[in-house]
Amino acid sequence: MSEAFVTALLELADDHLVLGHRLSEWCGHAPMLEEDLALPNMALDLIGAARGLYARAGEIEGKGRDEDDLAYLRGERAYLNCLLVERENGDFAQTMLRQLYFAAFMEPYWRAAASSDDPVLRGIAAKAVKEVAYHIRHAGEWVVRMGDGTGESARRMAEAVEELHRFTDELFFSSPAAEAAEAAGLLPVRAETRGAWEATIRTVFAEARLGWPAQVWAQQGGRAGAHGEALGHLLAEMQSLHRAHPGAAW
Amino acid sequence: MSEAFVTALLELADDHLVLGHRLSEWCGHAPMLEEDLALPNMALDLIGAARGLYARAGEIEGKGRDEDDLAYLRGERAYLNCLLVERENGDFAQTMLRQLYFAAFMEPYWRAAASSDDPVLRGIAAKAVKEVAYHIRHAGEWVVRMGDGTGESARRMAEAVEELHRFTDELFFSSPAAEAAEAAGLLPVRAETRGAWEATIRTVFAEARLGWPAQVWAQQGGRAGAHGEALGHLLAEMQSLHRAHPGAAW
Repeated sequence: MSEAFVTALLELADDHLVLGHRLSEWCGHAPMLEEDLALPNMALDLIGAARGLYARAGEIEGKGRDEDDLAYLRGERAYLNCLLVERENGDFAQTMLRQLYFAAFMEPYWRAAASSDDPVLRGIAAKAVKEVAYHIRHAGEWVVRMGDGTGESARRMAEAVEELHRFTDELFFSSPAAEAAEAAGLLPVRAETRGAWEATIRTVFAEARLGWPAQVWAQQGGRAGAHGEALGHLLAEMQSLHRAHPGAAW
Repeated sequence: MSEAFVTALLELADDHLVLGHRLSEWCGHAPMLEEDLALPNMALDLIGAARGLYARAGEIEGKGRDEDDLAYLRGERAYLNCLLVERENGDFAQTMLRQLYFAAFMEPYWRAAASSDDPVLRGIAAKAVKEVAYHIRHAGEWVVRMGDGTGESARRMAEAVEELHRFTDELFFSSPAAEAAEAAGLLPVRAETRGAWEATIRTVFAEARLGWPAQVWAQQGGRAGAHGEALGHLLAEMQSLHRAHPGAAW
C-alpha cells in the first residue's frame, strides 16, 4: 500500500512542480505589473504544494530521499505528471486556460482530500484549497476577458480551447497506484471530481462566450511516464544547477 | 515640490522593480526547492512595493500615467535606480550579498518612512518593512553559510564582496529631488540610515568571517540615469511584451 501511495503522491507533486515551473517561465516577461505579480504568485503556490507532497512521499518511502532528490534527480521517464501541465505556455490565452483547467480540477480534489486518512495530506490540502480557489477566479476572469473580448483575443482563446481541451480527460483518470491509494481512503477518487470541474468550466465558458468543444480524442500517458518532448527541456533547465552541484548553492 | 517627490518615488520604485526582476531571473533555475520558493517570494515583495510606488507617483504626477506606463514605457536613461540593484546575478553568493546590502538599507529606511507626511507611502512602508526584515534574515543566513563554509564557498563570497561593496555608497546619497522630498518631510533622509545599515552588515560579516572591505572607489550615477549596459538588456526583456502589445495581454 505505502508504495502505491508514494507513487500517487509523486503524480500529484509532479503535476504541481511542472505547472509551477511553466508559470514561472513568465517571470519577468508578463505584459503588466498586475500579472508580473499574479503569475509568480500562482507558481509559488504550486511549487510550495509540490514541496510538501515530495517531502511526504520521501518520508513514507523511507529510503532517505528528500524533496530535492525527488524533484531534481528523477529523469523524464520517471516523472508522472499529466500531459496538461507540461504543455508549453503558448500565448497568454493558453497559459490562463491551462491554469483554469487544472485549478478547476484541484479545487474539488483538495476539498475531498480534507477527509484523507493521511493527516499530512489533509494539512497540505487545507492550505492548497484556498490558493486554488484564487487561481480559478484569476484565470477564469482572464478567460472571460479574452473570450468575450476583441476579435483577436476571442480567436486566441478559442484556439487555446482547441489546443488544450483534449488534455483534460487525463485529470480524471486514476493510475493503478492512485486507485489503490483511493481505495485505502488516502486520496480522493479522481473521477468523482468531474461534475464539479465541468460545472466550473461550463460557467466560465458561458460567460466567455466559448463553445463547449466537441468530443475530442483524449491525450494521456503522462502517468506512465510517456511525456512530450517539451517536458525534457523543462526538466533539463530546472534540474541542471542542482545536478551540476548537488547540495551546493551554485 | 510634488515634481521632486514624484522623481524620488520613481527612484525608489525603480530600485525595487529592477532588483525584483533580477531575482526573478532565478525563477526555475534555483538549486533547491527551498530557494525555488524563497527567491521568487522576495522578488514578489519587491515588485509589489514597486507597483505601489509607481501608482502613487503617477497619482501625484497627475498626468494620467499609470503604474504600467511608468514601469514599461520609460527608457534606460529615464530609469533612476541605483547601480547596485542592476548588477547581474552572478553566482548565488553575489545574488544573496546584493540582496542583503539592499535589504539592510531598506529596513531602517522603511521604518523611518512610518513618519512620512504622505499617508500612502506610510502604508507601503508598513507592509514592506516586515518583508524586508525577512530578506535580511534569509540573505544574511546564506552569506554566513557561504562565507563561513567550504573553501570554495568562502572564496566566492569574498569575491562577491569585492565585486559589490563599491556599489553600496550610492544607497546613502540623496539626489536633489530626494533631498527636496526629505526636507519636506515626505521621505526619510538616506544618509541617516547608514549607521543601522553598517551595524547589520558588520554583524553578518563577523559571523561569516568576512573582512570589512578597504576603502573602495564608490560607484554611482544611477540616480542620474547613467547605467551599466546590463540594465538595457534587463529592460528590453522586461518591457518587450508590453511595448509590442500595449494594453493587450500578449
